[in-house]
Amino acid sequence: MEQKYLLIPGPTPLPPEVLEATGQQMINHRSPSFAGILRRVIEGAREVFQTNHDVLPLTSSGTGGLEAAVVNTLSPGDVVLSLSCGFFGDRFADIAEAYGARVERITVEWGKPIPPEVVADRLRRDRKGEIKAILVTHNDTSTGVTNDVRAISEARENHPALLLVDGVSAVGAMDCQTDAWGLDVVVTASQKALMSPPGIALVAVGPRAWEAVQHARMPRYYFDFHEAKRYLERPVMQTPFTPAISVVYALDVALARIRQVGLANWIARHALMARATRAGVRGLGLSLLAEEPYASNAVTAVRVPEGVDVRRLIARLKEEHGVVVAGGQGPLEGKIFRIGHLGYVEQQDILAVLAALEEVLPELGFPVERGMGVKAAEKVFATTVEVPQ
Amino acid sequence: MEQKYLLIPGPTPLPPEVLEATGQQMINHRSPSFAGILRRVIEGAREVFQTNHDVLPLTSSGTGGLEAAVVNTLSPGDVVLSLSCGFFGDRFADIAEAYGARVERITVEWGKPIPPEVVADRLRRDRKGEIKAILVTHNDTSTGVTNDVRAISEARENHPALLLVDGVSAVGAMDCQTDAWGLDVVVTASQKALMSPPGIALVAVGPRAWEAVQHARMPRYYFDFHEAKRYLERPVMQTPFTPAISVVYALDVALARIRQVGLANWIARHALMARATRAGVRGLGLSLLAEEPYASNAVTAVRVPEGVDVRRLIARLKEEHGVVVAGGQGPLEGKIFRIGHLGYVEQQDILAVLAALEEVLPELGFPVERGMGVKAAEKVFATTVEVPQ
Repeated sequence: MEQKYLLIPGPTPLPPEVLEATGQQMINHRSPSFAGILRRVIEGAREVFQTNHDVLPLTSSGTGGLEAAVVNTLSPGDVVLSLSCGFFGDRFADIAEAYGARVERITVEWGKPIPPEVVADRLRRDRKGEIKAILVTHNDTSTGVTNDVRAISEARENHPALLLVDGVSAVGAMDCQTDAWGLDVVVTASQKALMSPPGIALVAVGPRAWEAVQHARMPRYYFDFHEAKRYLERPVMQTPFTPAISVVYALDVALARIRQVGLANWIARHALMARATRAGVRGLGLSLLAEEPYASNAVTAVRVPEGVDVRRLIARLKEEHGVVVAGGQGPLEGKIFRIGHLGYVEQQDILAVLAALEEVLPELGFPVERGMGVKAAEKVFATTVEVPQ
Repeated sequence: MEQKYLLIPGPTPLPPEVLEATGQQMINHRSPSFAGILRRVIEGAREVFQTNHDVLPLTSSGTGGLEAAVVNTLSPGDVVLSLSCGFFGDRFADIAEAYGARVERITVEWGKPIPPEVVADRLRRDRKGEIKAILVTHNDTSTGVTNDVRAISEARENHPALLLVDGVSAVGAMDCQTDAWGLDVVVTASQKALMSPPGIALVAVGPRAWEAVQHARMPRYYFDFHEAKRYLERPVMQTPFTPAISVVYALDVALARIRQVGLANWIARHALMARATRAGVRGLGLSLLAEEPYASNAVTAVRVPEGVDVRRLIARLKEEHGVVVAGGQGPLEGKIFRIGHLGYVEQQDILAVLAALEEVLPELGFPVERGMGVKAAEKVFATTVEVPQ
């Protein structure tokens, strides 16, 4: 069956007006016309990052943005504290290691968040101030766990370590107050809560990060922050290298939509979709990987019931119901499946995936009382004040 | 006036069916459906590169692809011979330097090509075999000069240096026989002769380059060739990081069109557009930067006549005629303007730019006999056997 419901944690479905913008004709990327579009995108991105400082657009996936965060602020040999509770936390640490940082890894079981007090404790013991930066994933897409980035930032107390935040699946889907929380670099990407095609990473760079850039000796060229900023500040705003123009077109329209809805409402919508998904999943008698206090607005990880073959589950959802969900990664492969509810996802999408699960699960040996998943989700939708779209 | 004719050396105008493909809905980039598209794109790219070896898709601009070529094949301290005749040749050298290569620069006047015998001579004097790689731009977009990459490759004789080729504005627009000429790495990008939006760099990697990858110690993560290849070889073909899906959709359709036309015809079309442009420009009484034997199929650089303000020229072409051309870069700023004729450019586009020049030049103080440019170009079109589109 053709895909009807794309519910993976990115790329996410695009609204019709974003698709239309994506398919517009090319124009000169160094022209005043394009500068106007780019300026609106940067302004719109500043709003979702909740920052008054710089936002740099890079033509890459989110991982390219993470690499940029590392190589622009650090030097080979620098001690970096990596906080990881999943696949993407590990990746961030691997990037720093690839560029010669000495990475100390704090890891927690996949499905749990990073305890901020562990960070506070480690930093207090760093009397020489050797730790130059902390790497953290705001929301780990692999587990559907949201870290308390604000508390982690505060856990630094007076320690000077920079906080570099992977906000790829977080920014726009949950509250991420870059300036107010003192986050030094926050990275996001176009294809998550910003409901645009993949191809642009957006990187918020605060004043303490810019100081670090002056001394950072990791090699860089394509991802150089200074060049990115220098070109944005030209009389005709532009990027050093040809950007993914179609994605910039898309972001322009998508960010305008988010502004129209209001960021707080946009985040509330994500919270609602997530709550309804969790209620529905529990209604089906399934259990969740992440517990309620740190369960993600962006993606819900569901434990695969004993005896059910998750590959067959995912395949049947797609083939028989046009519902596309994601499997598990790394140690969670075969043990969970993930329902994304990021960006342009609506009530009917959530109900569709639950209804499809109600049909498929019994066929795979897990008995379900029909209607219980949908009913539980509907109850959440019914008892929540409507959120503008 | 709205843009009607986009004649810059990239991004280039997209045909309607490519625009339509670009605006398609997102699908899971790790699904068999997307793998099918990716597989066709890689196959199509192999044909334009004229290689039977690997082609790796990277989500970045062409410059990201150049960085990938450098960091995957070299180590800090390696001696690299840079051959530069323009802005992009210099950039390639700068990238290698940023990553710690010891770069020896052979430069020629902008507007001239690299003499292959200079390369042969330098390599013969490298008795210890210190030079690990040669960097060359097949076609420098800043000058409209095409280097004889085949002769430069042959100039290595038995010297083991790798040849890394910036083919960003060349591949698809001119003959680039990656395998037959022994080119070790060739980089191109989606937004030039491949008439797709910017966002994907395609990198052809030959067997000698893969050997070098084993020993190359420049740091890399996002642009790592091994990871790119490993993911392409998974049972479901994919990329390590979320690719610019819309651009992959576009490349699929654009490369199918090139296959249908035939690569030789596609290149012949570029040669014809370039010849007609040069004839037309000369017909207007203007002079060309690059001489005929090495004038580019991709872009024609025109000297600005004495007394004409090129900014006003470019602005008027756009405002009064909807014709978008490019200015000069670096030392050629204000001295040339550039007409791109890459990708989806047709006879009428070339005639339109010439007709617009006939109108605008006299207004800016350069007398032109009306019709002479268009007539000269039409003569080229009339006397050339029609090339399929």
